[in-house]
Amino acid sequence: MSKKVKVALLQLEATENKTSNTDKTFQCIREAAENGAQIVCTQELFQTLYFCQNHNEDHFDLAEESDGDLIKKLGELAKELGVVIVSSFFEKKMAGVYFNTASVHDADGSFLGIYRKMHIPEDPGFHEKYYFTPGDEGYKVFKTKYGKVGVLICWDQWFPESARLTALKGADILFYPTAIGVLPNEDDTVKREFMDAWETMHKSHAIANGCFVAAINRVGQEGGIRFWGDSFVSAPFGQVIAQAGDEETILYAECDFNLIEKQRRTWPFLRDRRPETYKALTGEK
Amino acid sequence: MSKKVKVALLQLEATENKTSNTDKTFQCIREAAENGAQIVCTQELFQTLYFCQNHNEDHFDLAEESDGDLIKKLGELAKELGVVIVSSFFEKKMAGVYFNTASVHDADGSFLGIYRKMHIPEDPGFHEKYYFTPGDEGYKVFKTKYGKVGVLICWDQWFPESARLTALKGADILFYPTAIGVLPNEDDTVKREFMDAWETMHKSHAIANGCFVAAINRVGQEGGIRFWGDSFVSAPFGQVIAQAGDEETILYAECDFNLIEKQRRTWPFLRDRRPETYKALTGEK
Repeated sequence: MSKKVKVALLQLEATENKTSNTDKTFQCIREAAENGAQIVCTQELFQTLYFCQNHNEDHFDLAEESDGDLIKKLGELAKELGVVIVSSFFEKKMAGVYFNTASVHDADGSFLGIYRKMHIPEDPGFHEKYYFTPGDEGYKVFKTKYGKVGVLICWDQWFPESARLTALKGADILFYPTAIGVLPNEDDTVKREFMDAWETMHKSHAIANGCFVAAINRVGQEGGIRFWGDSFVSAPFGQVIAQAGDEETILYAECDFNLIEKQRRTWPFLRDRRPETYKALTGEK
Repeated sequence: MSKKVKVALLQLEATENKTSNTDKTFQCIREAAENGAQIVCTQELFQTLYFCQNHNEDHFDLAEESDGDLIKKLGELAKELGVVIVSSFFEKKMAGVYFNTASVHDADGSFLGIYRKMHIPEDPGFHEKYYFTPGDEGYKVFKTKYGKVGVLICWDQWFPESARLTALKGADILFYPTAIGVLPNEDDTVKREFMDAWETMHKSHAIANGCFVAAINRVGQEGGIRFWGDSFVSAPFGQVIAQAGDEETILYAECDFNLIEKQRRTWPFLRDRRPETYKALTGEK
């Protein structure tokens, strides 16, 4: 018996115009739904350019509130189209407290909640520690009409802990809205090495946890960063079942969530964990 | 400045004759040392066939004590050759308590201690829960003349937790003595999928933790299992720097441990962990 769910990943270019970025993404969600997608996920911070390349107080004006207009409109769209929408946005909780956040709406339009990015990078061209407070609500899974959806965001992808914690909550699929690319001084060899490592980590989350993983990256040149796209979906044993290139695209993948049970019977890793021996992971001595 | 260490992985066939298996491995350690290896690691349970394919009480006679003859001889060999030896053996602690264990001897012959396999499989052809008590001493790093050596064993490879815990203790390199292969009903497509997943997990440990990883597998047909060899070494960003095929071989790799510092500056994942949010990994609610 199969339990096939069609997911769509929106891999797009962004401009300086927040309204047109938002309109384009909404239009792509419509297109994805027309093509049969049941769960749609946006790239990280889809409303804007990747504004973390430098420090600029004005950029805080780009943020949205989690009970604001964007979340309301996403709910209306989800309801109209009957699709689950995972959306990444710059969240203002209050003056001085901003998060890198994802929202999840169910296919009936109901707002299931948010996930706030737990691991925040701070590297040349990626000044996220300036803009974002580290997530304060932990790891989450959202029970939707089409399956249990885990959401993590970009830098989280390098941490096996966050994938595991989300999978242990029962996620069928982990979505990773992402903004990753190369700097001007990084050549094609370096880019290939970065991409390989990035893909390896995502596939390893699928394998170690026996679930689907979807990575959604943006494309295009923005200031000093060339975003490489390459969005993909991995099945529960690391098999890449759909992969985009470096052009704007809506990437579709059919995910049979019943493969999760099959995978975990053949390779029963979760059976053999030794949680009582993992205390040092939490900083305990 | 480089800090190059030459490691050697012994990928061998085994027979029913424990003495000749042991002699062959000792001879290969000599050959590796003559070729300049500074750290040598054996395959899992190198003294014997992979005896866990069925339940047989007599197999417990194959075990060695950690203060016994094997450990003494390994120490003498390490001292004579001036090499660090990581060795995997079937350990008898006392009547009824057996472990799947690895020993580490420093280049001056001193016995640095043992690691007891923490994650124990139990699958068709791999009845390890019958033979081995799960490790009772946790994750370890051994400070040797040539670097800090972490040891994990086979099934441990599927658990990001054990790689992380060992890396957090300062390991420059994680050795995984291994016995992995395919059953008669598993064709070349399945084998390729298994091997890909196996390699992905090892590379992910290197990437997530910014250290070297060495996987040492046996080769040959033993009863129903065809062991696939394919031993390899990964640099700290998942780059495979040496890889064997499916023949008996001593695989050499030059590991520049100073790359670890470089890697962790470029990709500072360890800086951004959120240990205080990982409590559910330990089974806490």
